Amino acid sequence: MAFEYLFYLGMSSLDAAGVLFYPELFRHAHDAYEAFMAERGADLAGLLREGRIGLPVAHASADYLRPLRHGERVRVQVEVSRMGEHSFTIRCALSNAQGALCAQVECVHVCVDPRTGRSAALPEGLRAKLGVEPSGETRV
Amino acid sequence: MAFEYLFYLGMSSLDAAGVLFYPELFRHAHDAYEAFMAERGADLAGLLREGRIGLPVAHASADYLRPLRHGERVRVQVEVSRMGEHSFTIRCALSNAQGALCAQVECVHVCVDPRTGRSAALPEGLRAKLGVEPSGETRV
Amino acid sequence: MAFEYLFYLGMSSLDAAGVLFYPELFRHAHDAYEAFMAERGADLAGLLREGRIGLPVAHASADYLRPLRHGERVRVQVEVSRMGEHSFTIRCALSNAQGALCAQVECVHVCVDPRTGRSAALPEGLRAKLGVEPSGETRV
Amino acid sequence: MAFEYLFYLGMSSLDAAGVLFYPELFRHAHDAYEAFMAERGADLAGLLREGRIGLPVAHASADYLRPLRHGERVRVQVEVSRMGEHSFTIRCALSNAQGALCAQVECVHVCVDPRTGRSAALPEGLRAKLGVEPSGETRV
Repeated sequence: MAFEYLFYLGMSSLDAAGVLFYPELFRHAHDAYEAFMAERGADLAGLLREGRIGLPVAHASADYLRPLRHGERVRVQVEVSRMGEHSFTIRCALSNAQGALCAQVECVHVCVDPRTGRSAALPEGLRAKLGVEPSGETRV
Repeated sequence: MAFEYLFYLGMSSLDAAGVLFYPELFRHAHDAYEAFMAERGADLAGLLREGRIGLPVAHASADYLRPLRHGERVRVQVEVSRMGEHSFTIRCALSNAQGALCAQVECVHVCVDPRTGRSAALPEGLRAKLGVEPSGETRV
Repeated sequence: MAFEYLFYLGMSSLDAAGVLFYPELFRHAHDAYEAFMAERGADLAGLLREGRIGLPVAHASADYLRPLRHGERVRVQVEVSRMGEHSFTIRCALSNAQGALCAQVECVHVCVDPRTGRSAALPEGLRAKLGVEPSGETRV
Repeated sequence: MAFEYLFYLGMSSLDAAGVLFYPELFRHAHDAYEAFMAERGADLAGLLREGRIGLPVAHASADYLRPLRHGERVRVQVEVSRMGEHSFTIRCALSNAQGALCAQVECVHVCVDPRTGRSAALPEGLRAKLGVEPSGETRV
């Protein structure tokens, strides 16, 4: 079972047609990823503050299948869809209250050494946390 | 007792110093206002879609007292601090997990007729909902 | 020669590491697309206000190759990379002041009838404007 | 004569009514402030990267007088409206193409020592640059 994250689609994410503006798909997917990491026990804020690794997104893509409208409660299913030595991929599936899949977002996070900007191996502790199956729904 | 709204301070709201970038105070305050309206039974999304009134912000101000940092769980207390015939003011107080007040945001919403852009009386139903005291904490 | 759009990378687009936060790639690419449309004589704002067609993004992807840093003057080359009957693809290439390619963004815009949400043929006038080769650099 | 900054009001700044969403006033005002600082020869990005001072906004306010609409070319007049020992205030006036004042934004920037978070004296070099009268219009 995938980790679930819920959000209310507020005015700040809309375009002039009253539907979610697509760059906001990535913003909400990132919020969902941060909640997912927290639920796995990975302290992302602390990790980045420490400055030993960075986890920038090297590739991001989204399919926006059905409009997400103002006031909708959006459900995001988050999963690690690929785990490598130096990178991992997070996949988010966004559904509306009727359960219809409205958008999918995929982001490849690469592990880098912030001092050099070069690729680095993912810390073993982080890989272990991301490899564990999630424990169910969490409301944020 | 004021309505409470909680949010996790994620990467999308940060500046380069790792603290909340001040325009994001207004974004989160607006999310809190929308949650507050929903809790009062005011369907803001429906109201705006209908197109009979608009509630734009004519004045907004914020005091940013203490840095809000990445990963913090921020608590927002929302209240109607003034209710008029044609406008109302929403006040949000943002505190960190230690209970310290970190920021205050105040927004004056004016009721307008979207066809003319002119000031209009607040619908009686909406005023009644905003005048009622809130029922306690709601997590969103 | 492709259309060029320049922007200064300000604080509002940064993450805590002081580099452009990837959802902002899509925001700036959209600004560049709007400038490109204006340069082609396509009045996007008027077109959408009229309400006969919508041009939502059905697919968006980005490769973020090198960090774009605070204070950089970013050059965006915009082109129509595919033109169909019901959709078109906009490709943006973002380079830094040294001319190094830092990111690529691709967005598929589909033409829809806003009343039904269904796919519609691109208006002939719009297709003609997008098919014309651009006339050079425009600073916005 | 005040410094002037121009921007095109694109889709990313709109609300569902097709007008600028008020938190975006602060975002654009900050972009204008960064362009203003650059024009004065103050390397804001370098200054913050160096880490000896920070210039967070302690108070921000906006009056939003007339709707700013999709596609408008907005003109921002930027000035230092107050200069102190430990803080300064930036005032931005936003006008539409017809020259009508649409919004005013005021931000108080305080100088802090990033290591302690405490108030610090503004560096003499920065104060001198902010005190000098601007040299005219700059398009960004």
